[in-house]
Amino acid sequence: MALLRALLLALVVPIVRVKAYDNGLAITPQMGWNTWNHFGCDISESTILNAAKAMIAKNLTSLGYEYVIMDDCWHAPARDAATGAPVADPQKFPNGIKALSDEIHALGLKFGIYSDAGRYTCGGRFGSLDHEDIDAKTYAEWGVDYLTLEYDNCFNEGRAGTPKLSFDRYAKMSDALNATRRPILYSLCNWGEDGPWNFASTIANSWRISGDIMDTFDRFDDRCPCTSVIDCKLPGFQCAMARIIDFAAPVGQKAHAGAWNDLDMLEVGNGGMTHDEYVTHFTFWSILKSPLILGNDVTNMSADTLEIITNKAIIDINQDSAGSPANRRWKRSVQGGGDLSLWSGSLVNNRFIIALLNTSPSQQTVDVDFTDVFVDQGKVYQHQAYSISDLWQKDASGNWGKPLGTFQGSLKKVVIG
Amino acid sequence: MALLRALLLALVVPIVRVKAYDNGLAITPQMGWNTWNHFGCDISESTILNAAKAMIAKNLTSLGYEYVIMDDCWHAPARDAATGAPVADPQKFPNGIKALSDEIHALGLKFGIYSDAGRYTCGGRFGSLDHEDIDAKTYAEWGVDYLTLEYDNCFNEGRAGTPKLSFDRYAKMSDALNATRRPILYSLCNWGEDGPWNFASTIANSWRISGDIMDTFDRFDDRCPCTSVIDCKLPGFQCAMARIIDFAAPVGQKAHAGAWNDLDMLEVGNGGMTHDEYVTHFTFWSILKSPLILGNDVTNMSADTLEIITNKAIIDINQDSAGSPANRRWKRSVQGGGDLSLWSGSLVNNRFIIALLNTSPSQQTVDVDFTDVFVDQGKVYQHQAYSISDLWQKDASGNWGKPLGTFQGSLKKVVIG
Amino acid sequence: MALLRALLLALVVPIVRVKAYDNGLAITPQMGWNTWNHFGCDISESTILNAAKAMIAKNLTSLGYEYVIMDDCWHAPARDAATGAPVADPQKFPNGIKALSDEIHALGLKFGIYSDAGRYTCGGRFGSLDHEDIDAKTYAEWGVDYLTLEYDNCFNEGRAGTPKLSFDRYAKMSDALNATRRPILYSLCNWGEDGPWNFASTIANSWRISGDIMDTFDRFDDRCPCTSVIDCKLPGFQCAMARIIDFAAPVGQKAHAGAWNDLDMLEVGNGGMTHDEYVTHFTFWSILKSPLILGNDVTNMSADTLEIITNKAIIDINQDSAGSPANRRWKRSVQGGGDLSLWSGSLVNNRFIIALLNTSPSQQTVDVDFTDVFVDQGKVYQHQAYSISDLWQKDASGNWGKPLGTFQGSLKKVVIG
Amino acid sequence: MALLRALLLALVVPIVRVKAYDNGLAITPQMGWNTWNHFGCDISESTILNAAKAMIAKNLTSLGYEYVIMDDCWHAPARDAATGAPVADPQKFPNGIKALSDEIHALGLKFGIYSDAGRYTCGGRFGSLDHEDIDAKTYAEWGVDYLTLEYDNCFNEGRAGTPKLSFDRYAKMSDALNATRRPILYSLCNWGEDGPWNFASTIANSWRISGDIMDTFDRFDDRCPCTSVIDCKLPGFQCAMARIIDFAAPVGQKAHAGAWNDLDMLEVGNGGMTHDEYVTHFTFWSILKSPLILGNDVTNMSADTLEIITNKAIIDINQDSAGSPANRRWKRSVQGGGDLSLWSGSLVNNRFIIALLNTSPSQQTVDVDFTDVFVDQGKVYQHQAYSISDLWQKDASGNWGKPLGTFQGSLKKVVIG
Repeated sequence: MALLRALLLALVVPIVRVKAYDNGLAITPQMGWNTWNHFGCDISESTILNAAKAMIAKNLTSLGYEYVIMDDCWHAPARDAATGAPVADPQKFPNGIKALSDEIHALGLKFGIYSDAGRYTCGGRFGSLDHEDIDAKTYAEWGVDYLTLEYDNCFNEGRAGTPKLSFDRYAKMSDALNATRRPILYSLCNWGEDGPWNFASTIANSWRISGDIMDTFDRFDDRCPCTSVIDCKLPGFQCAMARIIDFAAPVGQKAHAGAWNDLDMLEVGNGGMTHDEYVTHFTFWSILKSPLILGNDVTNMSADTLEIITNKAIIDINQDSAGSPANRRWKRSVQGGGDLSLWSGSLVNNRFIIALLNTSPSQQTVDVDFTDVFVDQGKVYQHQAYSISDLWQKDASGNWGKPLGTFQGSLKKVVIG
Repeated sequence: MALLRALLLALVVPIVRVKAYDNGLAITPQMGWNTWNHFGCDISESTILNAAKAMIAKNLTSLGYEYVIMDDCWHAPARDAATGAPVADPQKFPNGIKALSDEIHALGLKFGIYSDAGRYTCGGRFGSLDHEDIDAKTYAEWGVDYLTLEYDNCFNEGRAGTPKLSFDRYAKMSDALNATRRPILYSLCNWGEDGPWNFASTIANSWRISGDIMDTFDRFDDRCPCTSVIDCKLPGFQCAMARIIDFAAPVGQKAHAGAWNDLDMLEVGNGGMTHDEYVTHFTFWSILKSPLILGNDVTNMSADTLEIITNKAIIDINQDSAGSPANRRWKRSVQGGGDLSLWSGSLVNNRFIIALLNTSPSQQTVDVDFTDVFVDQGKVYQHQAYSISDLWQKDASGNWGKPLGTFQGSLKKVVIG
Repeated sequence: MALLRALLLALVVPIVRVKAYDNGLAITPQMGWNTWNHFGCDISESTILNAAKAMIAKNLTSLGYEYVIMDDCWHAPARDAATGAPVADPQKFPNGIKALSDEIHALGLKFGIYSDAGRYTCGGRFGSLDHEDIDAKTYAEWGVDYLTLEYDNCFNEGRAGTPKLSFDRYAKMSDALNATRRPILYSLCNWGEDGPWNFASTIANSWRISGDIMDTFDRFDDRCPCTSVIDCKLPGFQCAMARIIDFAAPVGQKAHAGAWNDLDMLEVGNGGMTHDEYVTHFTFWSILKSPLILGNDVTNMSADTLEIITNKAIIDINQDSAGSPANRRWKRSVQGGGDLSLWSGSLVNNRFIIALLNTSPSQQTVDVDFTDVFVDQGKVYQHQAYSISDLWQKDASGNWGKPLGTFQGSLKKVVIG
Repeated sequence: MALLRALLLALVVPIVRVKAYDNGLAITPQMGWNTWNHFGCDISESTILNAAKAMIAKNLTSLGYEYVIMDDCWHAPARDAATGAPVADPQKFPNGIKALSDEIHALGLKFGIYSDAGRYTCGGRFGSLDHEDIDAKTYAEWGVDYLTLEYDNCFNEGRAGTPKLSFDRYAKMSDALNATRRPILYSLCNWGEDGPWNFASTIANSWRISGDIMDTFDRFDDRCPCTSVIDCKLPGFQCAMARIIDFAAPVGQKAHAGAWNDLDMLEVGNGGMTHDEYVTHFTFWSILKSPLILGNDVTNMSADTLEIITNKAIIDINQDSAGSPANRRWKRSVQGGGDLSLWSGSLVNNRFIIALLNTSPSQQTVDVDFTDVFVDQGKVYQHQAYSISDLWQKDASGNWGKPLGTFQGSLKKVVIG
């Protein structure tokens, strides 16, 4: 079991400026929905259109979820023999990808596609390696003027192992997309190999940092064997949610407007975690400024799931224009296993966020010291008074964010279940 | 001491699809026999033909053992001075390699050969580095239409250290073999350097993951110093059998039809382990989908040895068409040294495999929880009932696989010696 | 809390020669002042000129502080469209950089500038990658005949990961600077990636060894995650002062006249540490032969701050012509956390330095054995008598360095708070 | 304190064959004397000639010490301006190097020289990087027909970081030396970077495995920070003798006739270790098949020193034609610090070597089990009887190797001080 409290602190003093680079896209982390986590290879035109319609019906679009992303297995068995252009599976997509894209646009949404910087996709379809130009051109011809490309790393023919090898491979698609003259949100996925947080911000809008997420809280799995994403030579997959949070701690510093750490698609609603665990999941993806890409079946959601993914206070943190991920201030081992950690971050307009994470099996009580919360801001901030709200409770008007009062110096005896 | 129980679970629900890539060869792991582990450099035409005949006489061929592989030291002192073509030792092979290959084929078996992606072979003979084309061409001229090439890593002139350097070196032989227009099973050996599980599946049918096996259960040897195969910079040799199982745990995820992790040739029957230890050896090589290449003297086997290598239930798991290696679900330290671990995997037709591994010096009793066994399949599977058989006992008809009854939720108090 | 005692030992015997290479610049570590630590991006002509004038007014120049370095954010939004030359921000620098440089020179000081071996600077301005020639040429045209270049590592497009990739990238600027025919002190910053202590001494006068310093004594921060600078793949920033001392221990051996390990700019006077901690900071930067680049607001210093940065005895050690960094002789864990360590080094004229570092929360008492202090010099030195002074106390004449008497064999019961 | 017993076991059964590659030189490890460890840069013609004459006078030559190697600092300030050829210091070598080489040859000895695969030597003289051809040609013109080249790694301009980068840099000199058509013993020194045991055996006769030796038994020094030579990114120097033995354990497997692990030059006689420690030093360098290059002042040796370096039984093991380094069979932590380890190896003619190493501060008593000693040879060997001699005692005739009797199964209660 594991709970989290996300608290918002506000006061009126200027905040520290963040060094940032901006290429005009994904100024805040992208939000949307993707086929993979729930449907895997079992997709078709209707899967995707139904999801798009459900996103509107459930008002998800009004909260910022705008990308509808078709993941792996949309492909025909082979490229077009004459032109080498990619071809979609005619059975799954009888009207073609352009028709699907047009319908998505008609709904006011944006359309995304998946490919792989290797010979094959992870699902064994044709990949884009050494076909970057024709693929980017075709994607553009399919009529999408705003494209999210999820660009994966399977079967990469050994073109990895130094940042330069990885940069060069992924920059090829970046250049090809730019050559189409259409604005394209480029979501790079190389599972964190060679440190994309170091090399990718000038060529992509986001980069995955680890192997694929597993819909579970904190179970170690041999298939996600690294204990850190720094120089991990086998990112693998089946990475538990809380392990990805741990992975993200040292690399948050590298994200900024237009260039985000991608913690992988959300599992909220897919059934492998408890309500509290999904709350933790959604909160940390938000405060770490990960893209928020839903991975559940949005046509069939419980009220619980809907409530989590529509917490506007949490989404606002993710979309805050400061673009500054929360940082872990301390991490303490808990007797009996697991850890307790404190995270804090700054937003625009002198607001701040505090979050606690408990991965131990037992409830913990902890004092939160403002010298830890404001380690980056210094002594003046550490000694001021703050009005604090709990973002997972609602206020009197029914809006997320219940005021808890004014606090100075510390929060005493916070209970984290 | 160390024992293992391999249990087969069966029920009738659809299983999860595995992402797979298929190049038409080694759809299931290759099976056969190789000269090295028992004979080393002391080989000749008769060594190999006698083994081939024994494989037929002992009915090994009917179980799938079909490759007869001539390992290192078949070479003349030098290549042909005029053509640069490889030449066999005229004393060991007075009739030449083509004659040997013809005889192997006449017996209904397939013929394999060894070379090295370096200047010399590990035994100091001429290697194939920078001679890939002439070597592949000659192998084809030697009349083999189905060739297993064991392609080693000694004296590689520093062409390693990034996946790209290793890929490029081994892809040269892959291209040369393909250029011969003959189907060639390409068994790559670079001892796991630079992560062949990441780069080799598009160029080879299997890849070694570690240094050479030692015919012993679990003894640490300084010559096999790495504690993991991930980014191991000195794979070495003299790797104990159970250490290779441990090495294989994180990389099983990368294998699929036509592309296998090779845990090295079998030592069953070579005398360095007990009966129970060889049972463990054979079982894990099977469930981890390693090629099953016998390494003992098949002309002179004990009944015990023969029984182990002919357990059809275990072989069937190795050759199961799902092509999905078992995964380790947990690994627990045992007081007094060693570990206890649980492994499970899925087969076609809703069948599953459970295995336990005990490397501690004492007998262990353990409950096997189905939430661990079916961590990948989810809650529905975790709560169903399964009919279970023990694959190292025989049923009433004398076939391997004794039914143990029906179980739900867990197996209680499994004793593992 | 943490204190240090810096002791100077003197006797009259010849010292061991140090292997050294000399390119004519930075024969002793450079000294000066830089805008970044205190002012960040908030700089202008007056910020820099005021600091220069204060350096003279406070007599800092007489102690050797001579470089006035303009760090990041001096840039206009873009390079000159026609020539590609760098352009300064016309608002911050209405008279241009050349005028500023001329004024600095008129004051008898030297002028330094910042750029980045990447597409952008860390602050998001245009970087010098692939613009080395025009940038070096422009810097020269700006009229500086003695230039300190702080050359950073942000947005480096993946050109790192092997010493060769890093060397080649930074050597380009080295060649470009040399091509201007002006003597230029080249201060390289790649945060220690790929081991600049191994590759940079033939192309630069100093190299940073770690992520950026944080103005705090010994707090671990996830943004500076590596526990050593050896093969650190994520140097990050927010590295506490005492952690940088620990980082420096193994690489001190690589420094020599003209080629220094740069421990980053000083934080003395910026408010995050106590007096004793700043004393420790200044002492270790000195004895480890780091450049001494002030990072505080020199126009507004406390008496305490001024006293620390003007300790002539400590500065003399830094500028000693032997150019030999102190080495750590032992490091011992203290119960309750932290470490106690002994450092010693040799100066010219048979003088030696001893320093103790206590990062534990409690006062420690320790015997300093001369067999440890003189481990490099051998038995004769270990058994001689030395007259010893405490460099953080003043003698009767008011000069730094209070004689403590003569000692042989050891210093007994040294108390380190 | 630390002692060792070196025991020779003999019996009459065939031994296991070793895979080996042979290029015609250094069939057994080279033996000789080098200027560096004792004289450093303070060398001249007379230093070297006096040593050569002393080697003859002390009968060292009759035991196999034949190379007289002039290490760093023989250089003039610059190469010949016209030809680029290397020039010797005219003051130190008034008659030139050729005259010196002729005198060495006239004494029946062989002459070796030092250079560096970098821009400068470690002592700051001109290096051979990018001057390989002219340097090799000049060395040959200097009239030496048998040259030992010690080829170092300082100032290598970043040409390291993958085995390929290191191979290519050192292969250039290998090719240049071969192009001179003179047999040249090529002794490569890159401190173990990128694993020369993997890449160097086809281009060199020996390769250093670690940073430079320190004349001390087992003291940790921060300047030799790696705990293993596998993937060590900062080999450094000041590596204690027993640490180098530990470093050598995993790489012994890579040595064979003509291709040796070089544990660095000997310190026996230089005064930093006790008699027993030097006995340990000399024994392990011998049984690990390191080159035996004396580093003391051979013109002025104590009887103790002379006795150690002239133990013919120990030298015979080093020069044994099987060329097979001893392997560590186990290593056990000792309470109170340090380790106890057992090593064994095989020689020609069914002889074997056992050695114990005790790095703890106290005397240890241990049973040596023959199942450990003969782990490579198997059960038959483990149960045979052996006549055993102690190689650091003399027999009745005054020859090294005192018979201790016949033993089977184990040696009981061996005391190791």
